Amino acid sequence: MTEKYFSETFNPRFSDTDALGHINNTMVPVWFEGARDPIFRWFSPELDTNNWQLILAKIDASFHAQMYYGREMEVRSYIGRIGGSSFDVYQELWQDNELRASGTAVMVHYNYTAQKSAKIPIDILDHFKKYLKVSK
Amino acid sequence: MTEKYFSETFNPRFSDTDALGHINNTMVPVWFEGARDPIFRWFSPELDTNNWQLILAKIDASFHAQMYYGREMEVRSYIGRIGGSSFDVYQELWQDNELRASGTAVMVHYNYTAQKSAKIPIDILDHFKKYLKVSK
Amino acid sequence: MTEKYFSETFNPRFSDTDALGHINNTMVPVWFEGARDPIFRWFSPELDTNNWQLILAKIDASFHAQMYYGREMEVRSYIGRIGGSSFDVYQELWQDNELRASGTAVMVHYNYTAQKSAKIPIDILDHFKKYLKVSK
Amino acid sequence: MTEKYFSETFNPRFSDTDALGHINNTMVPVWFEGARDPIFRWFSPELDTNNWQLILAKIDASFHAQMYYGREMEVRSYIGRIGGSSFDVYQELWQDNELRASGTAVMVHYNYTAQKSAKIPIDILDHFKKYLKVSK
Repeated sequence: MTEKYFSETFNPRFSDTDALGHINNTMVPVWFEGARDPIFRWFSPELDTNNWQLILAKIDASFHAQMYYGREMEVRSYIGRIGGSSFDVYQELWQDNELRASGTAVMVHYNYTAQKSAKIPIDILDHFKKYLKVSK
Repeated sequence: MTEKYFSETFNPRFSDTDALGHINNTMVPVWFEGARDPIFRWFSPELDTNNWQLILAKIDASFHAQMYYGREMEVRSYIGRIGGSSFDVYQELWQDNELRASGTAVMVHYNYTAQKSAKIPIDILDHFKKYLKVSK
Repeated sequence: MTEKYFSETFNPRFSDTDALGHINNTMVPVWFEGARDPIFRWFSPELDTNNWQLILAKIDASFHAQMYYGREMEVRSYIGRIGGSSFDVYQELWQDNELRASGTAVMVHYNYTAQKSAKIPIDILDHFKKYLKVSK
Repeated sequence: MTEKYFSETFNPRFSDTDALGHINNTMVPVWFEGARDPIFRWFSPELDTNNWQLILAKIDASFHAQMYYGREMEVRSYIGRIGGSSFDVYQELWQDNELRASGTAVMVHYNYTAQKSAKIPIDILDHFKKYLKVSK
């Protein structure tokens, strides 16, 4: 059974490269955050930053192979772990059918007014389950 | 008669915003450079940065209206002026059918080995003419 | 007579380079905006973005010579023109005693609540005059 | 006994903020990479990117507290682990005497010509030991 994920495709930009001739590693967290938009929309449907409900606790990124300018890329986003108020987004960066980078973002459902974490709403848990990454 | 342009659409990212709640102005030169890829390909079809033939002399960007996260954007790229070895790329950033920013990049056909500018090849001039912006 | 300017020195970062082996041009607007902090402080002494009073109308940047990773840089910031509600910040980027890039940012004193431009306060005009660039 | 580290201080820039009013998390990997320059210089004294000897295998970053625009920051860099051909750089981001973020970069001494990892030279191991982080 194929697991379900959010897919975002895009072309890396000239300014994303570095002097070694490839894509600079610091773009990966930028692209991964960008590709979490569909997940952000579960919490803030209009992506209204005045009513944000998430906070980022941790990120990691592993670099498996060089990434190149001039060829399309795809980020695949899964839910990696479901906790009480926190959850993991697991993401992969593919180019030319090869896994180039992967990483996990630990996010927390957060009440900015009360300045504390909050339980993940049940309807969002249902969304999570559809995109859950089982094998890794 | 409608003028012909290159169109690139994309979604701005969370990290493109700034503390005023909109898109930060420094993203516009990044997006405009990224949207010049089809023009770069006339000079380097594979976007091979080891055989690059262009140098950037000047950019400007005018900010007409706020740009927002959460809504698709489009960059439209035209040729703005054709010189002997240099040319202008004129670009517009649209969101929700409104012109948000515009700018011009002055590019020079450049021989990196000889370290000097070079005439624009005739076949590329033919490409230029198809995308020439007449009215501004 | 030497004109007075704000000076900011820093080391460019590995991620600021691009595949041509130099600093990517899109960093210049980022550095120039960063070096405008002392000017921002005249309007918002604590750089409080909840009480911001400036809006950016236009930027340009000219690239005079390649910029390199591994060597310190300096941005010099002057007031370039004083209008009623708008003013220009003229900036230069120096590396190894050579002018590498220069540019102008057109800024407007802006009332975000009323959504319109506002006259530059007299005490700020006095600051402006001390950093005015006469020759260019 | 106080452990020895590389210190880099700088002011975050306006463009480093995001719509939540703080510094965007994606700047942390950029700043951490920038602050690894003294370590890069052990391998390439002139930071010559044509003769680079390092490759990045993995990064992580934990976010402990909000980071603010308008106040100086410091990155402290330590050697976190020494392997045969790989090593960890452990880094902390401080602002107003508070630890705001921390992370580890796994780097590999790499021979780009042979396309394989290489033992860390003995003289560099000596440097490493001086900056080794024991307690974490």
